[in-house]
Amino acid sequence: MPMPKHVVPGEGQFLIDNSFSIGLEGYTDSRLTLGTHRFLNTLSRETGFRFSDAVQARPARFTIKTAGASEPVQKLGEDESYHLEISTTQVQLTAPNPLGVLHGLQTFLQLVRITPKGFSAPAVTIDDQPRFPWRGLMIDSGRHFMPVSVIERNLDGMEAVKMNVFHWHLSEDQGFRVESKQFPLLQEKGSGGLYYTQKQIGEVIQYARDRGIRVIPEFDMPCHITALLTGYPQLASGTGPYQIIDKWGVFDPSLDPTRESTYQFLDRLIGEMATLFPDANFHVGGDECTGKEWDANPRIKSFMSEHGLQSNAALQVYFAKRVQKLVTGHHKITEGWDEVLQPDTPRDVVIQSWRGPTGLAQAARQGNRVLLSNGYYIDLNQSAAQHYLVDPLGGEGASLTAEQKALVLGGEATMWSELVTPENIDSRIWPRTAVIAERLWSPQELRDVDSMYERLAVISQKLEYYGLEHQSSTPFMLQRMSGEADPQPLKVLAATVQPPEGYTREGLKEYYSFTPLNRLVDAVPPESETARKFNNLTKLIAAGKASPAQWQEARNWLVLWRDNDAKLRPLLESSELTAELIPVSHTLSEVAAIGLRALDDLENHRAADTAMAQNNVQMLEAAAKPEAVLIDMVAPSVELLVKATSTK
Amino acid sequence: MPMPKHVVPGEGQFLIDNSFSIGLEGYTDSRLTLGTHRFLNTLSRETGFRFSDAVQARPARFTIKTAGASEPVQKLGEDESYHLEISTTQVQLTAPNPLGVLHGLQTFLQLVRITPKGFSAPAVTIDDQPRFPWRGLMIDSGRHFMPVSVIERNLDGMEAVKMNVFHWHLSEDQGFRVESKQFPLLQEKGSGGLYYTQKQIGEVIQYARDRGIRVIPEFDMPCHITALLTGYPQLASGTGPYQIIDKWGVFDPSLDPTRESTYQFLDRLIGEMATLFPDANFHVGGDECTGKEWDANPRIKSFMSEHGLQSNAALQVYFAKRVQKLVTGHHKITEGWDEVLQPDTPRDVVIQSWRGPTGLAQAARQGNRVLLSNGYYIDLNQSAAQHYLVDPLGGEGASLTAEQKALVLGGEATMWSELVTPENIDSRIWPRTAVIAERLWSPQELRDVDSMYERLAVISQKLEYYGLEHQSSTPFMLQRMSGEADPQPLKVLAATVQPPEGYTREGLKEYYSFTPLNRLVDAVPPESETARKFNNLTKLIAAGKASPAQWQEARNWLVLWRDNDAKLRPLLESSELTAELIPVSHTLSEVAAIGLRALDDLENHRAADTAMAQNNVQMLEAAAKPEAVLIDMVAPSVELLVKATSTK
Repeated sequence: MPMPKHVVPGEGQFLIDNSFSIGLEGYTDSRLTLGTHRFLNTLSRETGFRFSDAVQARPARFTIKTAGASEPVQKLGEDESYHLEISTTQVQLTAPNPLGVLHGLQTFLQLVRITPKGFSAPAVTIDDQPRFPWRGLMIDSGRHFMPVSVIERNLDGMEAVKMNVFHWHLSEDQGFRVESKQFPLLQEKGSGGLYYTQKQIGEVIQYARDRGIRVIPEFDMPCHITALLTGYPQLASGTGPYQIIDKWGVFDPSLDPTRESTYQFLDRLIGEMATLFPDANFHVGGDECTGKEWDANPRIKSFMSEHGLQSNAALQVYFAKRVQKLVTGHHKITEGWDEVLQPDTPRDVVIQSWRGPTGLAQAARQGNRVLLSNGYYIDLNQSAAQHYLVDPLGGEGASLTAEQKALVLGGEATMWSELVTPENIDSRIWPRTAVIAERLWSPQELRDVDSMYERLAVISQKLEYYGLEHQSSTPFMLQRMSGEADPQPLKVLAATVQPPEGYTREGLKEYYSFTPLNRLVDAVPPESETARKFNNLTKLIAAGKASPAQWQEARNWLVLWRDNDAKLRPLLESSELTAELIPVSHTLSEVAAIGLRALDDLENHRAADTAMAQNNVQMLEAAAKPEAVLIDMVAPSVELLVKATSTK
Repeated sequence: MPMPKHVVPGEGQFLIDNSFSIGLEGYTDSRLTLGTHRFLNTLSRETGFRFSDAVQARPARFTIKTAGASEPVQKLGEDESYHLEISTTQVQLTAPNPLGVLHGLQTFLQLVRITPKGFSAPAVTIDDQPRFPWRGLMIDSGRHFMPVSVIERNLDGMEAVKMNVFHWHLSEDQGFRVESKQFPLLQEKGSGGLYYTQKQIGEVIQYARDRGIRVIPEFDMPCHITALLTGYPQLASGTGPYQIIDKWGVFDPSLDPTRESTYQFLDRLIGEMATLFPDANFHVGGDECTGKEWDANPRIKSFMSEHGLQSNAALQVYFAKRVQKLVTGHHKITEGWDEVLQPDTPRDVVIQSWRGPTGLAQAARQGNRVLLSNGYYIDLNQSAAQHYLVDPLGGEGASLTAEQKALVLGGEATMWSELVTPENIDSRIWPRTAVIAERLWSPQELRDVDSMYERLAVISQKLEYYGLEHQSSTPFMLQRMSGEADPQPLKVLAATVQPPEGYTREGLKEYYSFTPLNRLVDAVPPESETARKFNNLTKLIAAGKASPAQWQEARNWLVLWRDNDAKLRPLLESSELTAELIPVSHTLSEVAAIGLRALDDLENHRAADTAMAQNNVQMLEAAAKPEAVLIDMVAPSVELLVKATSTK
């Protein structure tokens, strides 16, 4: 995952043992030698063999042939193709440049598995290249600061699934996260001490480049700007003073678009950051302005009427145009969110569409290049299947002309960080981002959700070899919550619940930037594997298509859940963090009991009493409502069973 | 753990919430500020609260008062005491110098637990100081190279249990691991590319100092020296050429003690290393010389007769004296293994006793300072209880005079690395080393093994918050072995077996330095918690003292094990790494079946058939023999049950 474009299976398998070695032929550079060393380290972790010194000259078991160099600064649309041939005796990887080699190495790593003969990769011939040239992940370091180690391990994850753009959201109402030498109050007053030094930024950029990944910074303006204004209130539309915001939401502070001094400041800041970040693109945000500070400022109102700006939207367009000129002056391509797009937006501005497929189509029709993020908001706890089926050229995008379609560059998963910490962010990003990576790399017609989930389970496990913590963070947090080394009944409960989808969570409880995110809702992954599998079972049973083993499996789950509350209750009472779960656990037990009775009825072809079934359905629908900010994922499946009894 | 010297419990508890803050009073330095930041980071991981910016001036909830500075280079015998007072409203930590503060912070972290009111520490007053001034851990980076990250996370573990000496074994037949600028062939030819740069060494020393830990390097001579001779064969007693050894064992290559050029070389090397490592002590090894190269070299034989050296031991004494003078010349105290001790060994030489308690007593009687490692060989897979009960002043040490006892500085756990990798080394060191730390810190009369195991479970979990991988490496390796994300039946089997004790493992299978250590024997911890608990149950049952719940628990275990083989078998067959476990799993199932029949007999007060019981005992004793280099830990407990049936 992502599935290569063209695969021809061969016969037999290539065994990996102590004799494994790699040889580089043709063009070489430090990115290739570092890449092969990294490959060997990962292979060492995957197998337990020590390969660190296995790079050598010919004859090697694994030969890499690179035709030439890639661009000194990675560019949009560089050739990323590769050709990989695995036979029973050797492996050949060829590519026009190092980018293809890096991708081919990842494909090989994904093919490695343990077999009765040892670790091996199946014989195969692969010709591969991406469908879209822009396959991105955005991480919001503004709301919750993410240390460099978090960024780096996620870059490793991106490399594993062949993503090539890291979009770094670096400024927010809650924090300005980059050291500025021009304007040191940005970090001194605007970051609470949590920011990246310029040296660290440089290291991350190099780390990303080594992995075939571009780094595009975003400095959001004219809104989402409070942190910047804490040090430089003279740039604001309001009167200040300003303080870093410790709540979540959309706030009023904004830059004053009417004063020349604002643009002088931005010119210097953009100039400094344009030098720090070598990528051709520069993201200036531009989303979610309330305009309230503009409304309240008579000077701004009179500026608007002088300049014939009839709305706040028009004022923002005026601002956007001025900023685009500054960015162009520093030899960068401007990028912005939907809101930046106006009828006369210059054609070279790249639009990131977050509000919906219409925005994407509109940008392409206007002749602007565009990428999709709507549908890829991985902070919203949607299922992998939901993300997987969103296609940049699906929906309204499908109606574009070929020329317009060529303007659709790809897409980006966006990890907004209101409700994640360095501890659990991996579990929000991975493994689901891998299916977005596949959507953006692999042929459009690949849409089999069952196959996707099967392959997702494999890549999810492989990602652990890259040091990601998406699997290990859950048991760690359950340990902490319970104070027990191996809290089995809590694990049973945890596997049946999910955080609510979308933005409902923030309506259920008030969250501040300092609220500890150490509860069950923070510990469980966004999608319950157990609930998904149980749901598949109940569908088969309700449709009368389940095998005896599947009936038994469903029954085993229900018995486990019914009996779990009695074991879990004392543990829940012993910790302030888990006391809120007492009703959640009780409900699971009741839901399971209803499920078991429904199973009995179905097995005995007994029609359930109608009133009773209705009662049960009511109870199950109540059970599916959030409790302790968690959703019971078993109740809807049990409802399927109950409804099946009444239709019999 | 280690248990403080003096503890007075108070009433109530101190709650840890967002208002938590720390203030430093009195003397401060960078070690204290770094130490408090590290403390807050660990507390953040323990609780999920964000405390990183909670260091502030008064009034703080947690006040630290430090009277003065500690030594610029940490010295043997510095005051490490502290006084810790926790009330329901605040915490006071006072100490004469930063070393005590660091220890007191660790004590506080160990007291934190989740309660129905939230995270809290119990009110208490503690006065604490160590029993021995030397509480060490040795890591062998010579045989398997351990990256800096492994060393650093183990220094974190040492800090957690108040150990204060890191003994770094840096040269071996299999590798010379430090960059030398004087003699670059040492690393170029003697390390296979795996060595520490001088910059890295400096960073580790600083990292250790920040945690109150001395770093003592060991360069083993005149034997265990092959790696050094690969670059400098002219120093050898044999004819060479030499190559890094890829086997384990005791080998013949040795320095030539008869040539002045040897001492000229060592003088420069020791000089360079004495500058790199600021500690007052310098370890020159001196163990395990076979003398065969000396016997075979006529020039050395004639030198011996010229100088009246009547044995190889005498020649080694001659060498040791010369080297001691060189070390003294570089203003260091010489340290060496048992073998270095001779009747006329200078009084300032520190002896590390590895061969037995007699050596320790002998050194002290001669007036040399000495530390104990015999009994603390954590590479030998002994139980925590065995290590716990070894006391430097127990056995022959108990017969020393008070003056001689004062020469016993403490002890060191030794992690020899033939059979560990960076991946599983933590699971060999931790948590068992914590009990050695307690032996060396806490009052001698503390010897309750049950209490030790209870407290060990707590510290073991806490050590995960320091980034140690002793718990997480096992499931990771089981995943890899099986290719399954959560191989439950393999986990069941894994929990019942142990690597064999002592040196028997190397007799069961041939190991080379490149042998992958990725089998079940490498993945399971040295001591099976499950087997220990089951053994306690069977003892109670056999003694007729078990409660009905305990009978049921034993039965549940046996049923799980009896039925496990059927589930596990297909999984074992699917991987080359687990195929060898097929008989191990089958045996567990048979052992459990015998156990269940014995339980039935006991429950029904039925005397077992004598012949049958004898058969069973024979089977169980066979089952306790190593298979796939693993020991079945359940069989001896079942044997207890079977024997109990025949005595009824």
